[in-house]
Amino acid sequence: MSSSTHDIEEGLALTPRFDKDGLVTAVVTDAANGDVLMVAHMNAEALAKTIESGEAWYFSRSRRKLWKKGEESGHVQRVVELRVDCDQDALWLKVEQVGAGACHTGRRSCFYRAVPLGQKGAARLEFRDAAKTFDPQAVYDASAKRSP
Amino acid sequence: MSSSTHDIEEGLALTPRFDKDGLVTAVVTDAANGDVLMVAHMNAEALAKTIESGEAWYFSRSRRKLWKKGEESGHVQRVVELRVDCDQDALWLKVEQVGAGACHTGRRSCFYRAVPLGQKGAARLEFRDAAKTFDPQAVYDASAKRSP
Repeated sequence: MSSSTHDIEEGLALTPRFDKDGLVTAVVTDAANGDVLMVAHMNAEALAKTIESGEAWYFSRSRRKLWKKGEESGHVQRVVELRVDCDQDALWLKVEQVGAGACHTGRRSCFYRAVPLGQKGAARLEFRDAAKTFDPQAVYDASAKRSP
Repeated sequence: MSSSTHDIEEGLALTPRFDKDGLVTAVVTDAANGDVLMVAHMNAEALAKTIESGEAWYFSRSRRKLWKKGEESGHVQRVVELRVDCDQDALWLKVEQVGAGACHTGRRSCFYRAVPLGQKGAARLEFRDAAKTFDPQAVYDASAKRSP
């Protein structure tokens, strides 16, 4: 084991291993029940803002911009605990999800479909916990109307 | 919303959005308590083998190869439930973790360090649930001795 691998795995300095796009993976679970709410990405600035503020900030790969979770919907995430994995390329946020949900489709979690096991070939999905907890059009339209 | 976005988000066909390296992110939680055990990646073959067998297969980015979790350590993962997220670029595996742990460092979870919130600048970590549950050297050496 090289000294640097040892430092990354056993050390107490946060030295995130950002990928070639400058991002690490962030897994977000609901502190209330352990459900995975979403998977997102952070650049160095999003991570620093999350640590400093205790609220979740991410980097959107599609929009190429920093965003605070809930800045449009009001559905912010208060970080209860932040952890880093062994090789420091992934983060785990246990959050208190404010508002009706984390998913832009209107569900509490982005993981509202199961893949039944034992299938071969093209797999079919089944809805699980897929009831909408908010109307995304109403939430995001209201946000657009508030912004000049 | 384009028809294809609607199909990806609301449809019942599994159509994973593999990245340019042919991978999707796989978040693995402990079905017993909701803790995140690890974050890994799957290519199409690893995903197909996982669905078919009900045990977790991944693709190692560092070793550039398909691997069955536990093939060396015996610490296999029995998938209790597999879910896919809204845009189908991330999977959530709830697993029964067989054996002492999921992390190659000898812990149950790869997330054995917390990042205390409210810090500015270079962040310091704190160990959490970091006691080793197995001796990785003994486990992986034994595996090497079994292999010809």
